[in-house]
This record gives sequence, C-alpha cells and structure tokens, in this order.
Amino acid sequence: MKVKLADKHGFCFGVKRAIKLAESHQGGITLGPLIHNKKEIERLKNDFGVTVEESVENLPRGSEVIIRTHGIPKDDLAKLTQSAEKIIDATCPFVTKPQKICEIMSQEGYQIIIFGDINHPEVQGVMSYSSSEPIVVMSPKELFGAKLKEKVALVSQTTKKIEDFLGVASFLVQRCAEVRIFNTICNATFDNQEAARHLSQEVDIMIIAGGKNSSNTKQLLSICLEHCQDSYLIEDESELDPQWFTNKKTCGVTAGASTPEWIIERVVRTIEGYKG
Amino acid sequence: MKVKLADKHGFCFGVKRAIKLAESHQGGITLGPLIHNKKEIERLKNDFGVTVEESVENLPRGSEVIIRTHGIPKDDLAKLTQSAEKIIDATCPFVTKPQKICEIMSQEGYQIIIFGDINHPEVQGVMSYSSSEPIVVMSPKELFGAKLKEKVALVSQTTKKIEDFLGVASFLVQRCAEVRIFNTICNATFDNQEAARHLSQEVDIMIIAGGKNSSNTKQLLSICLEHCQDSYLIEDESELDPQWFTNKKTCGVTAGASTPEWIIERVVRTIEGYKG
Repeated sequence: MKVKLADKHGFCFGVKRAIKLAESHQGGITLGPLIHNKKEIERLKNDFGVTVEESVENLPRGSEVIIRTHGIPKDDLAKLTQSAEKIIDATCPFVTKPQKICEIMSQEGYQIIIFGDINHPEVQGVMSYSSSEPIVVMSPKELFGAKLKEKVALVSQTTKKIEDFLGVASFLVQRCAEVRIFNTICNATFDNQEAARHLSQEVDIMIIAGGKNSSNTKQLLSICLEHCQDSYLIEDESELDPQWFTNKKTCGVTAGASTPEWIIERVVRTIEGYKG
Repeated sequence: MKVKLADKHGFCFGVKRAIKLAESHQGGITLGPLIHNKKEIERLKNDFGVTVEESVENLPRGSEVIIRTHGIPKDDLAKLTQSAEKIIDATCPFVTKPQKICEIMSQEGYQIIIFGDINHPEVQGVMSYSSSEPIVVMSPKELFGAKLKEKVALVSQTTKKIEDFLGVASFLVQRCAEVRIFNTICNATFDNQEAARHLSQEVDIMIIAGGKNSSNTKQLLSICLEHCQDSYLIEDESELDPQWFTNKKTCGVTAGASTPEWIIERVVRTIEGYKG
C-alpha cells in the first residue's frame, strides 16, 4: 500500500515546547494531562517520571507543577501559586492570547462569546478569565434565543475550523451593533487542516492518528470525511483494521498536533505492509 | 392588473427628517442633492425655493446651507462653518455613526475598511473622518493584494446588503488578528430589503420606484432580480412600459428610502390600469 503523508501534520510549536519543559523537569506533576495523547503521556511517565494529577486539591504540597498546554482556570492558578513549590507554565502561548482577550474585553464591558467546546480544558481556562458570564457555543444555532448585548467580543478555541468560526461571527454581526472578532485559531491548526483537506481529495483512504479527546484531531477527521468517506481516527497502529484497506491503492496519513512522530512512523510502516 | 405593495417600502426616518428640515428652511441651499430623488428635489425647489449647489466654493457667502442626508466630507464642513450664515444639518443620524466610528477607530490605530461605493457621497463623507487612508471596497475580491494591518475596523455604507457585508467581514477575519466590525447598515434598509425579498417571490413582475443614483434602490433591484427575473427600476410612472405586463397577473411594487409616497401612488395607479 502506497502511503502519502500530509505536508503539514503532527506536533505544533506549543506541544513541542510543553514536552521539552516536561522532559527538563523530571518528577514534575502535570495538572491534567499535558497534551491529549495517552501514549506520549505514558512515555513521559516511564522515561521522565512526569505524572498526572487531575485536581489541584490533591497535589502534594510543595510539588513542582507543570501547567498543561491547554492552560488552567484562573482560580486553579491562584491556588497553585499558594501551594506549589514551583510552577512550570507550559500553557501554549496561542492559548494565553484568548485568555487575555477575555479578561480585557470583559473588563471593557464587552459580552464574551467563545466558539468552542465548553467541556474542553482550554475553553474552561479561557472562560475563567472573563469577569462576566461568557456564552460558549459550538455553532450559530446555539445562539438562537441567547440574550446578546450590543457590544460583543468573539474568540475561538485555538483548534477549531475557520469556516465554523465564520458562521458564528456572521450570526453575531447581523444582530449586534459592534462585534470585536479575534481570530485565535492557531496557525498550526490552520496549516494542518489545509494539508489534510488537500490530501484527502487525492487518496482512497485517510488515517488520522491522534488522541480521541484531542480537539484538533477531531477537526482533522471532520475535514477528511468531507472529501474521503473512508477516513478513520486511530490512537496508534494497534487500532488499524487491515480490512479497511481492501481494494484501496493509496492511503493518506495525517496526525493531530499532539501526536508524536514515533506513533506516526509506526502507523505508516504498518500501513505500508498492507497489500490493499 | 393586481398590485401588491411591499410591507415596508419608501421613505425612511432620515429622509423624512431631512425633508421636514428643508421645508422649514425656505430658500435654503443644499450642498449636493438632499436625497437621491430628482422629482422630490424638484418639488422642494418649486414649493419651498430650496435649491442645490454642488460645490462648497460656489455657495454665496452668508447662505443658509442644508447638509444632505448622506453627509459631507469633514473639510467641506469646516469651510461651511467659515462661510455659511447658518448650517442646517440634515445628515441622517445613521450616517453620522460610521463617520464617528472611522474617526475614533483610526485615532486608536485601527486600519479602516469601508464596505461601500467609493463614488457615493455618503462614503466620501465617511472616508474623510478617518485620520489614516481607508480602504473602500464593494466586494472581498477587491481586498486581494491589499496591505492589511493586524488590527482593522470595518463599517458599511448604511444602504448595503447584509450578505455582501458578511462576505467582506469573513475575508478579514481569516486574515487579521483583530477585526472590529460595526454593523452600520440601517434598519430601514434591512426592513425594506426583507420585504422586497419576500414579495418578489410571490409575484410575476416587480417594479422598484426610486432614483437611479440611489444606493438602497439599486440594492432593492438586485434583491428582486434574485427571485423575479422581470424586475424593473423606474424613477416614476412615465418610465413604465405596458409591454412588460403582458401575460402577467400580479405585480409587486417597492420603493427606495428616498422615493416619496406621491410617486409610489402614481406608479401603483398606472399599473392597476394595465390589463396584463
């Protein structure tokens, strides 16, 4: 089976930076998983003794605490500042941006609208910086019936699709006197999406390697499915089903921003071994 | 021939206000036509002695000068303040808004983007309030190759279609870090457009009464043509061609924001006389 890799795929700047920080703080504890990739989290634990603690209350006093790429809520950061021995901030700088925007815009009296998944840790962090109650939506439909103010500010979860963001933006522009739109979708997300869109149009099957909780990986799957019905999301090569490849000639491979190169390599090697 | 009038049509708040001001200042001079409707301008001249002067330099010193609904450039206003005996400001308050926005936003360092017709007097007035060179476009295509800054502010000519405004907004959101969007399309424009869109889908022929220079009238024609191929823009009943109505049963009528009711009534009566 012939395999084509997407021109842009895998680790982004923020993830690379976070992993370097974790590797250089052996024995550190991350508050929630550092990135959305179980296998890489296991590697950090096995090779560098970096463990995960879900709740700020359960952290042993005096720990070295690493803040995950997605950031954490403002209150948790305040508690950490009290209890931790050392805080290593691995928040992606592209996530710090919407946090700051929410803080400043809400202080200036703008109603905050966040385009993203309310259950995603990045969004929960961003929300916490708004001094007024923000509205979080995944689509314009969810804004029907919402009490919108005259002046609103819109930010996006960094890993969303630009088309969907524009849909929310257009809805607001039609209803509010002023909409202050901050395009906080990160370039790596955008580039990976463009490359996946392109590749999925020229292959028979698409494999997306990445964590099932990873927002940007899920967006890649959604984009590939628009052009290639045979698109599958897998965490690693063990989830590949050889039957998917029957009668297929070319397989495209892409990977989420938190998928390490070593997983991608194994996936590619396994697929290359299939007959098709 | 059966005639249906659009639920909302004709004179808007700003035009009504301007005409009242002109009528109560007999012998006044308007700088450029007060509104984009020749017949109404003729009526104001004949019945109230209100005349039109195109250039601020040609105004007799000490005149009573009426500022047109579309507003005038900032420099012209400064000259008027020096030379006129009295200034009667009939600028539509919905036009004053984008003027002020351009002034403040450009002072705050935002690059100004105006969605509108660069040759239209309203747009020329709005442009003049930007302290930096604004970009004026009629479509997103015109922004290709434009040197866009990171922070831009977008306003619209008050009489444009919201769909086209959203197209320009979406283009900018994809390319700029912050886009501050002010929906300055006026409600009367929006309401008249919605009513025209609705009516044009249920009749055999649409007649749009209004000035050929009137931006909002041209938008009404464009909307009607989307749904009814037999849509015609006329200035008054003398331009109606009875042949248009052959084999037609129902005629829809709408009118621009600067079309007086007396013209609309004559148009309706003339069409009602046709056999179809």
